[in-house]
Amino acid sequence: MTEQLVLHEFSLSGNCYKVRLTAALAGRQIERREYDIMAGETRTPEFIANVNSNGRIPVLEVGDRFIPESNAACYYLAEGSSLIPTDPFDHADMLHWMFWEQYSHEPNIATLRFWMGWLGPEQLSDLQRAQMPQKRTAGNAALKLMDDHLRGREWFVGEAMSLADICLFAYTHVAGDADFDLSRYPNVSAWIDRIKADPRTIPLDG
Amino acid sequence: MTEQLVLHEFSLSGNCYKVRLTAALAGRQIERREYDIMAGETRTPEFIANVNSNGRIPVLEVGDRFIPESNAACYYLAEGSSLIPTDPFDHADMLHWMFWEQYSHEPNIATLRFWMGWLGPEQLSDLQRAQMPQKRTAGNAALKLMDDHLRGREWFVGEAMSLADICLFAYTHVAGDADFDLSRYPNVSAWIDRIKADPRTIPLDG
Repeated sequence: MTEQLVLHEFSLSGNCYKVRLTAALAGRQIERREYDIMAGETRTPEFIANVNSNGRIPVLEVGDRFIPESNAACYYLAEGSSLIPTDPFDHADMLHWMFWEQYSHEPNIATLRFWMGWLGPEQLSDLQRAQMPQKRTAGNAALKLMDDHLRGREWFVGEAMSLADICLFAYTHVAGDADFDLSRYPNVSAWIDRIKADPRTIPLDG
Repeated sequence: MTEQLVLHEFSLSGNCYKVRLTAALAGRQIERREYDIMAGETRTPEFIANVNSNGRIPVLEVGDRFIPESNAACYYLAEGSSLIPTDPFDHADMLHWMFWEQYSHEPNIATLRFWMGWLGPEQLSDLQRAQMPQKRTAGNAALKLMDDHLRGREWFVGEAMSLADICLFAYTHVAGDADFDLSRYPNVSAWIDRIKADPRTIPLDG
């Protein structure tokens, strides 16, 4: 595939990092276009009309078309690579972890990271502040579930790194930014080190 | 594929209905095993140890293995059918809508339906009650985004029904249970009628 690929992103977002990391691991070249989400640059009429009607990044531009949702963009980039298992059960199991990441992991760990690191405690609404203990509990439950699953395993699905690992790695390895204590999850910590040790892996802030 | 398929479910959940509807449209036979989620039957040690460590339904049992997450189970059942586009862009676009459903649609529309229809207003916590206006706004934004996308289109992706339609249909067609007014979204309403008109479509309460 030789079409031009452009990632519309806010580079410090874990959801955007996932897409860059997938591209690096799958050997795909992408251009990058940065948006200042704090200044509302993804909520302009132009962005809504031309890039993503949902007003969010990342979005992967493919030729003249656009793929919103980080995990869908990762799938597009990894198509045909070893990051996507071909066995139907393993493939569905990979998707299971990717949907779980967006439903049970990202809204807790990534949201707390954003609230604490970007908005800052003083800028939070009363409703956001009231949700923090629940997100803290749910975030730790997600990390524990991952740690239990990784006991005796190297990767989330089968015997090789897949998109499940990449999509979960993105916000897990920076969970400390939201004051999650990763030392409580030794299997997760070892898995993080395993991914970082891959020479193709790029850093979030790169 | 001839392996035995068992759906572990709470049948009135839209997430479980998705899986049954996919099976019906893809011509797959599944057995059904019902759990009383209000009685905590998916949070028992046995369920956590043997079916889903996340304590949630639906879970699709395939032989002696298990696929949690509704949209992953739908993908497994539809594999090789016309419900999954083969073009890589259309395939990623289908996944985009499925991830969007779990992140931007289900937590608003399905959660309000559950809170209003199962828990009931008197049983809600203060935090749940405080989140209702935000979920109402986000649910209507999701329905409007769908309505705008469906202007001039019959299906969410390409020119045929795909898993994107099935996964979005599940909670959209019963959004009235959570007091969303679907008459405000004529393109969504026409799309609902289009899916209901398919002779293979089964009802949620069937």
